[in-house]
Parts: sequence; structure tokens; C-alpha cells
Amino acid sequence: MTALNPQPYKGTRDYYPQDKRVQNYIFTMWRRVAELYGYEEYGTPLLEPIEIYAAKSGQEIVNDQTYTFIDRGDRQVAIRPEMTPSVSRLVAQQRQEMAYPARLYSIANFMRYERPQRGREREFWQLNVDVFGVNEIVADAEIISLGNDILKTFGADESMYTIKINNRKLIQQMMSGYLGLDTVQSELMVKLFDKKNKIEATAFRDQALEIFGSAAGQTGVAKIAALLSAKNINELPAQILECEAMSEIRVLFSVLKKNGVTNAVFDSTLMRGLDYYTGTVFEFFDSDPENNRSLFGGGRYDGLVGLFGADPISAVGFAPGLTTTELFLTSHKLLPVFHSTTEVYIVVLEGGEDAAAKLTKQLRAEGVKTEHDITARKTDKQIKTALKKDIPFIIFVGPEEADSELYPFKVTASTEEKKLSFERIVSTVKDRRIKRDDEIDDLFA
Amino acid sequence: MTALNPQPYKGTRDYYPQDKRVQNYIFTMWRRVAELYGYEEYGTPLLEPIEIYAAKSGQEIVNDQTYTFIDRGDRQVAIRPEMTPSVSRLVAQQRQEMAYPARLYSIANFMRYERPQRGREREFWQLNVDVFGVNEIVADAEIISLGNDILKTFGADESMYTIKINNRKLIQQMMSGYLGLDTVQSELMVKLFDKKNKIEATAFRDQALEIFGSAAGQTGVAKIAALLSAKNINELPAQILECEAMSEIRVLFSVLKKNGVTNAVFDSTLMRGLDYYTGTVFEFFDSDPENNRSLFGGGRYDGLVGLFGADPISAVGFAPGLTTTELFLTSHKLLPVFHSTTEVYIVVLEGGEDAAAKLTKQLRAEGVKTEHDITARKTDKQIKTALKKDIPFIIFVGPEEADSELYPFKVTASTEEKKLSFERIVSTVKDRRIKRDDEIDDLFA
Repeated sequence: MTALNPQPYKGTRDYYPQDKRVQNYIFTMWRRVAELYGYEEYGTPLLEPIEIYAAKSGQEIVNDQTYTFIDRGDRQVAIRPEMTPSVSRLVAQQRQEMAYPARLYSIANFMRYERPQRGREREFWQLNVDVFGVNEIVADAEIISLGNDILKTFGADESMYTIKINNRKLIQQMMSGYLGLDTVQSELMVKLFDKKNKIEATAFRDQALEIFGSAAGQTGVAKIAALLSAKNINELPAQILECEAMSEIRVLFSVLKKNGVTNAVFDSTLMRGLDYYTGTVFEFFDSDPENNRSLFGGGRYDGLVGLFGADPISAVGFAPGLTTTELFLTSHKLLPVFHSTTEVYIVVLEGGEDAAAKLTKQLRAEGVKTEHDITARKTDKQIKTALKKDIPFIIFVGPEEADSELYPFKVTASTEEKKLSFERIVSTVKDRRIKRDDEIDDLFA
Repeated sequence: MTALNPQPYKGTRDYYPQDKRVQNYIFTMWRRVAELYGYEEYGTPLLEPIEIYAAKSGQEIVNDQTYTFIDRGDRQVAIRPEMTPSVSRLVAQQRQEMAYPARLYSIANFMRYERPQRGREREFWQLNVDVFGVNEIVADAEIISLGNDILKTFGADESMYTIKINNRKLIQQMMSGYLGLDTVQSELMVKLFDKKNKIEATAFRDQALEIFGSAAGQTGVAKIAALLSAKNINELPAQILECEAMSEIRVLFSVLKKNGVTNAVFDSTLMRGLDYYTGTVFEFFDSDPENNRSLFGGGRYDGLVGLFGADPISAVGFAPGLTTTELFLTSHKLLPVFHSTTEVYIVVLEGGEDAAAKLTKQLRAEGVKTEHDITARKTDKQIKTALKKDIPFIIFVGPEEADSELYPFKVTASTEEKKLSFERIVSTVKDRRIKRDDEIDDLFA
């Protein structure tokens, strides 16, 4: 038989313990901020009927990117490519029973068939944070503030990222009322705005001219220029300033300011690709020129729950991804150094087998994460394993140690080694934990 | 448009916050015991090439139960139906780089296309715990002891479950050496033994006779009876007692005894369905007659890593499932009562908006999980939301409270209400946490 391929499936990755530590750190911080805001965790199945994406997730996701197949019972299902339709289904199902505002979060894996590249994988992990049942813009502000606190919790300062804000109702007004485009033209223009930062200015202009058609082209392009030259809301063309959606944006900025979010800007080119947004849309952007990308985004989607036959209810949410977060933290040098989750490695000296087993048991009963070397190998090989695993403390147990109840205790990060009693071992390990937790708390406060 | 169906995909379930709390409790305890034993967490992709299951997972899983399909790049993939082939692949890939013994655990979701029934879902969650690189039986004993400590951590005592143990080498010896069966007959007999507890004694006898064929039938059935009548290892037929695998079983029982595991029994009918086991196999059984089922099992599988073209390495592991664990805990009344993860609900009185926002921010900075009512609803509606969400404390904030800096503080589990300062609020919330943690620690110690 030929050997099986040990590589993971294309576009996905394995998480070895050293990778999983980073993932768990990010998950822990996400969970922490979401729960500090009073959001509760939920979960949904991996597979959903394809219809729930067909409705509102946009053609690209459904037609080109879903992992979809027919199950053994002849149902067409998809591995979830995003969470918003699932969480809307969940709320619709218990629409009458739930307490509102419902604040919900989840951490889950998703799949999309995309060309794998830096920061984009076929299987990816996301935090999803959503609030259901608040019509007022104060909910949009809460969601954006929560996103902002997530980045602060990781130690980011406001020079490292910008929050771009727009509004779907305003976009509609821009396209039809201000630029005078019909439905088909609007859709094309939205797509063009969406890729503005990825193409040359001349290409943008040429394509805009084409959408307008020869008659309206020059005036139209001039209007777009006026729109884009506005450095803040007040410099926008009068026709846009007067429209109703503008008041939502003004309220949003004022609540964000109260909440202490100072780096939010209005961006008339921010579109967001998903079809289900109905009001506020936003994206957090990395300011690092080397990593100038969208970190995560979200918005208001008031129509989705109603599609499941339940009374409609308003919703705002956002979803940061693991890989983009990791890239952001790496490029801004915000990732701490991680060590093994195991705290103590018990090296067994000749004749110390029973004493080592006993000490191991006692340490575990005190909550100390203890790996016990059961291989009966030479001491240096046992030590090598502990060092390779990056375990912070090594304890040596032989007959002499068992008698004296004092154990050689090695700190692997230094050359320090001393003889400690059981009680001192436990307190030393716990002190290290408190120190680490304090460092992380400092990031948050 | 017809409404979309709000129900989850057949055989899967949604986890509302109240369900997710139970799931998270079980995950936390699993993680805790695995890490106390020095196991480190890893992760693998959701999809794997179908070949890795075809090799050793058994026909039933591969042909009837996998969710398998052809991806857009023409690869045949499967949603993982189990973890063992994936973790073996992971070890094979970094066979030279890893430190041994490698102790690894994961908590992940899997899918199998089965008829949904009590305790069996198409999407299910498992803890997987595996140690690589220890040939000696002491590793088998460690894995079984870890499983035992998981149940103890949940508060189970030994009257609630039994650990059944057998050995694949011994099974082979039983089938060929002792019962004189050829390869085909052995396979049939293993399947028959496997379902012994699910069929009538006469049906078992009839089917056994059929496997032996007319000539050897009566002697064979008598030999099986002798085998099954043994109440402990020493009563087994001499031909089995003398075989080499028996010494593995004896060592295993002696180390288990040293480790304090007292409810392990030898069971010659325990087979375990998976093809990859090579030595020890075991299963934890619920003793409750109402819920008399296998809780979880595992064993030694020394051949799997080598299939990926790496140097072979020995491995032992086991995998408890979420649903069976939950059923076990429920039937033995071991599940604690859960409340919201949110600790405080801020009810905003008229004119208290700014003060409430400020207090919310301060509480979060102290690590208090605080939901802030931003709906401007009547007080009674706000209180109703907090009660429905089962949040332990409610704080009322109006202009008067902002001035006095004393806040009405309601304990939702009682009628208790008092006025507390910010500092007293924080310490009351933290005291509750310490009490809860202590209760859980008591389970473990």
C-alpha cells in the first residue's frame, strides 16, 4: 500500500500545541470581551440547508464558494460559510420565547472554497457577536464599541486601526437620488466603489464613466469626485447631507464619541458585500501600510429573522476572524510569548517511581498541571522532553527526595534550581499564574 | 417567497445559551482533567481526504456513515467522522520534530450519517485524548485513569460506572488458538461477541453454532461458555491464561490498582468496532439500568501513524462524547444548576442614561460581566428581561443613585435588595464567583 499523505486538506491547517496556544489566546480574549458586555454564547450545526444562504448572502458565496453537497437523504446542504443566517434562524425558531434585547455570541469554524492566500483559508474561525431587538442606533454603537474594546484588549492603540462607517440607506440615496442611477447601474456602481482601493484611479474613473453611459458620464464622475473629496460628514454634498439616513450616521458618531471610540470615520466608499445589510455598515481597518486590510466588519440586518416565517426583528452584528486577528497582532507585535499549558514536568530518578506517582497525584489534586514521565528513560532524555515541550518547571523525584520531602525544582527559563517542599512548589506555580493573569488584565483595564 | 424552515438540519441541534452552558461546563471539565495530566490541545481541519478513514476505520463508518463528497477541485473529502486518523496524520507529519511521549487532546465536532436517536446525533462533539510514544502498558493505564478522573471530576462515584477491559491480541488468541477459528470465522465471531449484550442468549448460541459449522459446533459453544463463565481473569481457561497478551492485561490491572482505579473488570466479550486497535481496548459503562450503555471507550493503536509514511510509533487514546456524558450526568443527577454567564444587569431609570453608561464601563473595567439596558423601556420591562435571562444581580441607576453613588442592588434568586457602593458591588460579584469555583473544586479534590 502506498503511504497516506500526511498533509492537511488544501487551504486548511493543523494546529499543533504551539499554534493552538495562539488560537486559544485569541478565543479567550474574544470570549472575555463579549461576556463583559453581557453577551451569551450559543452554537449552531455545521451543516445548513443551502436555501438559507441563497436568500441573502450574495451570489458569490452561494454559487462559487460554498462547500455544498447532497446528503444520503437527498437534501442539499452546505457547510456553513458564515454565521449570520444560522443565528437568525436560531432566533426565528424561538422568536416568542427569547428575552430581548437578545445578546448572542459564538466562536465557530466555517468553510469557503476560495483560492488560499495570506490571511485567507478555506476553513476559518470567527467570533460572531449580534444583538437582536434594538431598533435604535445605540445598538449599532454598542456593537462597534465592543469591536473596539476587543482590539484594545489585545493591547492595540488607536493609531493601529481605523473604523470606517457607512449606511446602506445612505448608499441607496447616493446611488439613486444623488448620482441618478437606476437599479442595474446602482448595483454595478456599488461593486465599483467596493473595489476602489484595489484599482488605479484612472481605471476607477473609466469604469464609472462606463456605468453612467456617455450622456451623464462627465457630470456623474464630477459628482463622485465631490463625494469622495469630503474629509468629514459636513463636507458632503448638500443633497446627501439632507437625506434621512444621515441622521442615523450623526447619532452613531455622537454615541460612539460618548463611548470613548475616537477613531471612527465616515467612508462613502465602504459598501460591504453581503446582501442582507439594511442600515449601518462598518469595517475595522489595519493602519499598518504593510498589512493595510480590513480586519473585520459588520452592520445592521433588520430583515433576516423575518425570512424564517417569524415576526421580523432588528439585528446588528459583526464577525472578526482568527487569521486576520493573528496577522494584525503579529504585525503590530502584540502577541505575547506562549509556553506549554503544562506547568510541571516530573522527572523520575531510579527507584523514585512510586514517590513520583504519589507526588504527581498530589499536585494534580491541588490543580497543578503536571506531566509525569512514565518512560523509565535516562534522566537527560526526560529533561530534554520537558525542555522541548517548553514546560516552565521540572521536578526531580528519587528515593532521597521521597525521604526528605524536598524536591529539586528547576525553572526552565533560567538556570535556577532549588529544593522545595510540596507546599512551596504549589505556591510557586500559582504565583506564576497570578503574574500572567495580571499582565493580561493590564491590557484590558 | 415561502418562509425558510427555522429548524436545524436533521439529526443536529442548536445550542441556545441555556444549552451552551451545559456544553461549556462539560468542555471545561474535560479540558481541566486533560491539562492536569499534562496533555496539550491541538486542532485539525474539518475535512480530510476519504482515504485516511478507508485504511482503518472499518467499513461501516466509511461506506454508510461518512458525509463524503467531491470538492470543487475534484478531491473526494469527508467531514471527519472521528479524530484518531487525523491526530495520527498530525503526528506523522512532524514525526521527527515532536517531543515524546507526546500527550495531545482536542475538543471538536464530528459528523456521521446515522439514524438519530436518544444519545446519538449526526453532528456530535468529542474530547480526544491520546499519548504517542510509550510502548509500555503504563500508558494504557494512564489513559484509563484519566478517563476515570474525568467521571470523578463530574462528581460520579464508582457505583455509577464500570470499566470493561480486553486486549486485541488476546481476542486473536481466543478466536484462533482457543476456539480454532479461521480468519473469516474469527471476524464473524468478533462481530457476534460485539452484539452479545443486545441479543437473546439463544440467538447468540445459534449464531455461534453457525459460525463453527456442524462438526466443531458443540465443542466450540462449550468453549465459549467456559470463557464467559469466568468471573475474573484467574478463572479463564488455561489455554488463554498462558498466552502472552495475558501478561499485558495483568500489568494493566496492577498499575490501575496503584493509580486508585478500583472498578475495572476484564470482559472477554468487549471487542470495540474500529479496525485500528492493536492491544488494550476498554469501555466505560454506565451502571444505571435505565441508561445501561457504553459511555466512552478507547484503546491502543500502534499501527496508524506508520500508514502516513512516517516511522511507526505506539499510541493509546480514548474519546468521550458530549451527548453520552450529558445523559450520564443527567441520569445520575450530577449536573449543577446553571445561570447566565452575565453577572449584572443595569436597569436604567429616567434621567440615569449617562450615569448608567459610566457605571457599566467601570464595572467592565473591573472584570464584571455587565449587560446594560439601552432600550429606554419602562423599568418593569427591563427587570423582566433580566429575570428571563436568569442574570444573578440587577442594579438600578437613576439621577439620585448617580448623586449618592449608592445603587439599589437586587439579588434575583431572592427578594434581597440593598444599596451598595461601587466597591461593594464588585466585591459581592467576585465573592459569588469564588463560591462557585470552590464548589467545582470540591468535586475534583
